[in-house]
Amino acid sequence: MEQGNKDRSLVSKVMDGLVTGIVEEKYGAILPPQDVLSKEFDVSRTVMREALSMLLARDMLDVRPKIGTRIRSMSDWRMIDEDVVNWRFRAKPDPLFLRDVIEFRILIEPRASAQAAARGSAADIAAIREAFEAFRTIRPDEPGYQEADEIFHTRIVVASGNQFFKQMAAIIRGALSTVNPIVTKRDGEGLWETAVKSHQRVVEAIERHDPKEAELASLAMIDYTAEEVGGQFSAEPPARG
Amino acid sequence: MEQGNKDRSLVSKVMDGLVTGIVEEKYGAILPPQDVLSKEFDVSRTVMREALSMLLARDMLDVRPKIGTRIRSMSDWRMIDEDVVNWRFRAKPDPLFLRDVIEFRILIEPRASAQAAARGSAADIAAIREAFEAFRTIRPDEPGYQEADEIFHTRIVVASGNQFFKQMAAIIRGALSTVNPIVTKRDGEGLWETAVKSHQRVVEAIERHDPKEAELASLAMIDYTAEEVGGQFSAEPPARG
Repeated sequence: MEQGNKDRSLVSKVMDGLVTGIVEEKYGAILPPQDVLSKEFDVSRTVMREALSMLLARDMLDVRPKIGTRIRSMSDWRMIDEDVVNWRFRAKPDPLFLRDVIEFRILIEPRASAQAAARGSAADIAAIREAFEAFRTIRPDEPGYQEADEIFHTRIVVASGNQFFKQMAAIIRGALSTVNPIVTKRDGEGLWETAVKSHQRVVEAIERHDPKEAELASLAMIDYTAEEVGGQFSAEPPARG
Repeated sequence: MEQGNKDRSLVSKVMDGLVTGIVEEKYGAILPPQDVLSKEFDVSRTVMREALSMLLARDMLDVRPKIGTRIRSMSDWRMIDEDVVNWRFRAKPDPLFLRDVIEFRILIEPRASAQAAARGSAADIAAIREAFEAFRTIRPDEPGYQEADEIFHTRIVVASGNQFFKQMAAIIRGALSTVNPIVTKRDGEGLWETAVKSHQRVVEAIERHDPKEAELASLAMIDYTAEEVGGQFSAEPPARG
């Protein structure tokens, strides 16, 4: 147990040393081999491997066969703890949690859509169109619907070009995984057609490079979802307890 | 090495099992003792201790002497990886990073201020006032200035009552730690007095429960900072390469 804790704090120290070297641009683009780093930090290869794997899991490094361990662009470094986000969304959603996540989406996604329209690259915008075309061919009760929707929303925050908006993709995916099953249950009322149309309006505004319309279209797309979820909750009896 | 990886995946599996029990409300408010949990999961106490320490580090658990390991409110669970945020802000800031972080603050803080004005509790609002009174007594070149400013901004996102806004406090603190030294260097031009006044305007709007004015005041507070930093960067020669 003692041993375990000692290893842990040693791994943390090595991680911190590696990151210091990285942000001070000591290593260039490719990290030295593991055995060289082990010697530099005077630790076992096991400890070094564990420290590197922690950085790898955070999208800070990239292992390229024959090339070595590449240092990824800092804007890719994962500031969101996706384990915790997934756990949080795995719990039965309470109305306050849904309010908070919808409020958050209403803030992030419209602005990200506006930025995508204002400065998204041609490739980023083509990727949004491609995701939309895939999304519109799948009905909510078919496999792959959830994933297609997640890819669509993720590509919009990526196209915004803002690394913080992009980081929020994990939270938006969590929100979709909570909201979509509720909306799906109520299908047969033309909700899916409405969803496809509201997504299309966002794509077209981004393609026309119209930030204002992209923002409004994105807001309308989320509002539609929020109304559905709100309806679901207000239709339920008040919580017991 | 093999052994290390095996332990790691075992710890992950135990973490996942614990979280599943927690979100399914299997344990109530207090987790069973470590030796009971070790038996339940059929793992060593070392592995169980490590899994618990990972959850503890993410603000999911709380060790209370004589009471035991309490499960914290899910809204406290830390979705932000503060290590990565701190590392990211430790690197020399490039203009694109500053643009992104200011864009992000301009989105989060004004809305959080509006929500604090609309629905902050009396205690939350008193805590903002208290943080402001502490902040205004410290000049930028004195110790504790940075910390006082961070507490002020953190309390506003806490008072918003939105768990996602609250989670963004780590990013806002990172932004302040980057921006403040730049602003401080240019003191002697009345910038500090301007900063105090702009913070005061936010506090007073929140105290009056005026969301619209709180939002505008918060935006003005950040805009002022953005202008300073923008000035700093535009005064530099264009990046080489």
